[in-house]
Order: sequence, then C-alpha cells, then structure tokens
Amino acid sequence: MFKIQDYIRDIKDFPKPGIVYKDITPLLQDPEAARKTTDALMEKIGGLKVDKVVGIESRGFFFATLLAERLNAGFIPIRKPGKLPYDTLQESYSLEYGEDVLEIHSDAIKPGEKVLIHDDVLATGGTAAAACKLVEKMGGEIVQCNFLMELGFLNGKDKLDSYQVVSLLSI
Amino acid sequence: MFKIQDYIRDIKDFPKPGIVYKDITPLLQDPEAARKTTDALMEKIGGLKVDKVVGIESRGFFFATLLAERLNAGFIPIRKPGKLPYDTLQESYSLEYGEDVLEIHSDAIKPGEKVLIHDDVLATGGTAAAACKLVEKMGGEIVQCNFLMELGFLNGKDKLDSYQVVSLLSI
Repeated sequence: MFKIQDYIRDIKDFPKPGIVYKDITPLLQDPEAARKTTDALMEKIGGLKVDKVVGIESRGFFFATLLAERLNAGFIPIRKPGKLPYDTLQESYSLEYGEDVLEIHSDAIKPGEKVLIHDDVLATGGTAAAACKLVEKMGGEIVQCNFLMELGFLNGKDKLDSYQVVSLLSI
Repeated sequence: MFKIQDYIRDIKDFPKPGIVYKDITPLLQDPEAARKTTDALMEKIGGLKVDKVVGIESRGFFFATLLAERLNAGFIPIRKPGKLPYDTLQESYSLEYGEDVLEIHSDAIKPGEKVLIHDDVLATGGTAAAACKLVEKMGGEIVQCNFLMELGFLNGKDKLDSYQVVSLLSI
C-alpha cells in the first residue's frame, strides 16, 4: 500500500543546525508515488469548486501545478520579493528572527474567485497566513489551505483557524 | 486558434534595464491555455522514451511537473546552490559578468536513464548546457532540450548543438 511517508526524506540540520528538513524530492522522482499523492490531495479537496490554485515558492509549485490541471483551475505563484516581474501586492510576516515578505501579481485573483492555497509543509503557518491575506486583499475567497504534511508540534493551524486546513500527513 | 504568444507578457527593464522579460504567468493563470501548451510540448516530444524530466529553477518547474506526469516519468529539480538539501553535484557556468552554479541531487539520475531538460526560456543557453552536463556526469542520456520559447538572437542553440532542441515559439 502507498504511504507518502516512505517517499519523504529527513535531512538533519538543514538549512541550519537543529532543523530536520522534510525532503520531498524522492516523491517527485517516482511517477507512481507522485500520481498517488496528487490523487490523495484531490480526495481531500473533494467536491470544492476552485478557480485558482496558489502555489507558494518554490516547493509548493510542484503539486500546485498538478492540482490546478486536475481542477481545471488557474495556477498562481506566490513568490519572494523581486521575483515576479509585473505589478505586485506584498504582505510581510514574522519569522523567528526578523520578518519576510511574499508577493503576488496584482492581476492574479479576481474578486469572488475561489482559491486553494497549496504548500508542501505547514510549519508555523506564517507563510500560509500571509498568502491567505494576499488573496483576500484581492477579493478572493480561500476555500482550503492544502498541504502535503503538517508539523503538528509547531501549531501552524492556529494561524489558519478561519480556514479549512488539510494535509496528507501529520508529523 | 490558440497562440501561446497571446499569453506571454513582455516586461521591459526587468530584472534590469535593457532586458525584456518574458512573463509566462498569464499562461499559467488560464487553465485551457496551460493545457494546450502542455499538449503542444508533448507533440514536440513525440514518441521519445523519457525516464526523468528535469526542470530548471524555478520557472522551468511549472511545465516540467506537468510533462513528467504526462510522460509517466520522474520529476527532478535543478536548483541554485544551497536549495537542495541532500548530497549534490554542482556545475558552474559563465554569465555576462561572473559565473553562476547549478546543483542536482546525487541520487536524481541513474546511469542510462533517458532525460528531458525543460525550461521556460532558452536565452544564451548557459543554464541549459550546465544542466545537461550535470545529467551526463551522472550517466544520464539527454533525449531533448525542451523550451516554451527561444530568444533566437542570443544563439542559445549553439551551446546545445549536440542535443535535440525544441521550442514552441522563437522570438
């Protein structure tokens, strides 16, 4: 039986000491595992109507593009500052030390559009919460925050408590 | 009739003065245009057998994941230094001023595997040539270098003259 955790590799002390990084490249390398993962994410989405799938730079892009295709929805990248070439909206969010900024193109979402946010990992939730704020600033409606895995001990769901949050794996 | 050029936006002076950046986000935003683009790329691939699709960070990731799924092939990211968490091989290449480095995971390609390289734009060819070298270092065989568009005036094909090079649009 397919278990997504068999295709996720723990990398100790990456990107810095004390962090255990969840490497999804073994999952992407295996076409059958990737397909079953997309199938499982689609099951979590169920019958939701989705106009746009937002993928968060850059590991969120992989399954977000596949989900957008399956849902017949547009794909929208949310990126770090300076990467998107057209007019953007920005949202800053707190990190453990300092802060970071995310950007979305100003023509990415139309008012009333139903938007699914996807990223590989839900950690503290700061990135996903900032992505949701960007979408809502443009009048989009968040229908689901969708992740491959959730690091439960970081309580990221607390920052997303007004949204439906799903993940395939809780660690 | 579908024309990919209708979904590519010119952004003048991005990322720096004198450059006209080809923005593919309008293409990604439109599910039908994205699907027709994937169909057209698949036509260019024809009957080639492909074990792995390599996408180059990060705008190459979008269609590389979609192509990998269609081809029932693994998806492999090639990234800037410090982004891939596991053991990597590196390849440096020249830029107009200075040089840059690309990395691939050391377990990404097995000897004899047939590999398709995908990126959004073929410009000078330096990035794609470095990607090909990384794949060949691991014993992979490049079956095609595949692009959405080619900036013909930069003669990028010259750096890839031992490979099959295809693109949907030549500018």
